[in-house]
Amino acid sequence: MPIVHITITREGSGPGRNAATAEEKAALIKGASQLLLDVLNKPLDATFVVIEEVELENFGWGGLPVPEFRKQLAKKSHGAPTAPE
Amino acid sequence: MPIVHITITREGSGPGRNAATAEEKAALIKGASQLLLDVLNKPLDATFVVIEEVELENFGWGGLPVPEFRKQLAKKSHGAPTAPE
Amino acid sequence: MPIVHITITREGSGPGRNAATAEEKAALIKGASQLLLDVLNKPLDATFVVIEEVELENFGWGGLPVPEFRKQLAKKSHGAPTAPE
Amino acid sequence: MPIVHITITREGSGPGRNAATAEEKAALIKGASQLLLDVLNKPLDATFVVIEEVELENFGWGGLPVPEFRKQLAKKSHGAPTAPE
Amino acid sequence: MPIVHITITREGSGPGRNAATAEEKAALIKGASQLLLDVLNKPLDATFVVIEEVELENFGWGGLPVPEFRKQLAKKSHGAPTAPE
Amino acid sequence: MPIVHITITREGSGPGRNAATAEEKAALIKGASQLLLDVLNKPLDATFVVIEEVELENFGWGGLPVPEFRKQLAKKSHGAPTAPE
Repeated sequence: MPIVHITITREGSGPGRNAATAEEKAALIKGASQLLLDVLNKPLDATFVVIEEVELENFGWGGLPVPEFRKQLAKKSHGAPTAPE
Repeated sequence: MPIVHITITREGSGPGRNAATAEEKAALIKGASQLLLDVLNKPLDATFVVIEEVELENFGWGGLPVPEFRKQLAKKSHGAPTAPE
Repeated sequence: MPIVHITITREGSGPGRNAATAEEKAALIKGASQLLLDVLNKPLDATFVVIEEVELENFGWGGLPVPEFRKQLAKKSHGAPTAPE
Repeated sequence: MPIVHITITREGSGPGRNAATAEEKAALIKGASQLLLDVLNKPLDATFVVIEEVELENFGWGGLPVPEFRKQLAKKSHGAPTAPE
Repeated sequence: MPIVHITITREGSGPGRNAATAEEKAALIKGASQLLLDVLNKPLDATFVVIEEVELENFGWGGLPVPEFRKQLAKKSHGAPTAPE
Repeated sequence: MPIVHITITREGSGPGRNAATAEEKAALIKGASQLLLDVLNKPLDATFVVIEEVELENFGWGGLPVPEFRKQLAKKSHGAPTAPE
């Protein structure tokens, strides 16, 4: 009876993509269900997986919408001579 | 103060529909609120209901996205001579 | 594949009880599953129901923990001569 | 490690808007993160905020979809001579 | 920024246990975080995992609390001569 | 109709405490409800707040249960001569 609810931001994992692909979602579903089987011995048929995609401006970290938070992180990295990106 | 959160797949309940209708959603809201009144004596005004619709490819069962899981179920049924559909 | 998540406060529905009983929980599970069958034609076996019980001090309404909110509501009612309780 | 999940109806907070603006969402994210810092001393970087927007017909209160519930509330107010709107 | 919320029933995965062990929980956390890294390239430090344990009587499947549902499943299996357990 | 769901780890915010106090929870409820009023003009009476407390071993960050994650963070800080704690 496990339920795995995965919240991700709606964005692509590479150039030319703006959201997780159907293949990536299938891999998340397969991997999460397998994890419950491996660790707690739950049959695959007993696990539900829900993937919720959230717009970037609806997700906050560090008190900021994610796009702003990332800009700030990037700035910090560039300012630090030992950790360029 | 109950909160009832109902997660469903975004698909029609009959031909020519591709999502739950406004009437169906209203029936879910009414029924869920009435249930809390009947069982726990919670006034209708004290219950919130949220219906979350999830794309079929974002919902997994049996380690597979729902459309694949259903195909597999259908195959099993057809292979079993005593349980045709 | 529906998931019905019901959040309730941990308190009894009558004297001498301090939480929902097993019978009340079973009635919520039965009723919620039946609702999805009646409205969206979802088989009982395809619906998961989760009941989450939350301590009264962890639930807020009107900007107050529920016990305070109820006291305030009761005061308002008693102050209004046309709506005694 | 706090997670703040805010569910709101998808509607504008004023004329000419049909959803929360990016500025309003940023204010929710900032305020919620600051709240956890002020009350529980959680660093901003340790808090995630997710804003989920729900269509009006998917949100129920008083056993009704929100638009119907509001109409009913408005009617009650108009019927009461001491509390016109 | 992914959030993985895993809901499981509070029960042991073997004799003499009545809940998931700390080791099993650590394995779920590690596996879920690794999955997001493998599939969507999300750094481990950007993923939160929450494990929610639900009492058996608070979880429903097939319109029944899980303990009843399992008894029913077991009965069905025993009645079928080709699929004894 | 906003719902604010706050997930926190069950631990004290200072010495001699092992969980958030009733006062801290009341402050979270008040602050979250006020935030929705300030930003989206939602009346206090229209907002529900739920505080969910999660055991430390049930919360993961960086692929590890929170207690392990914190130990690792502390080690990194101590190893770095420019960022002692």
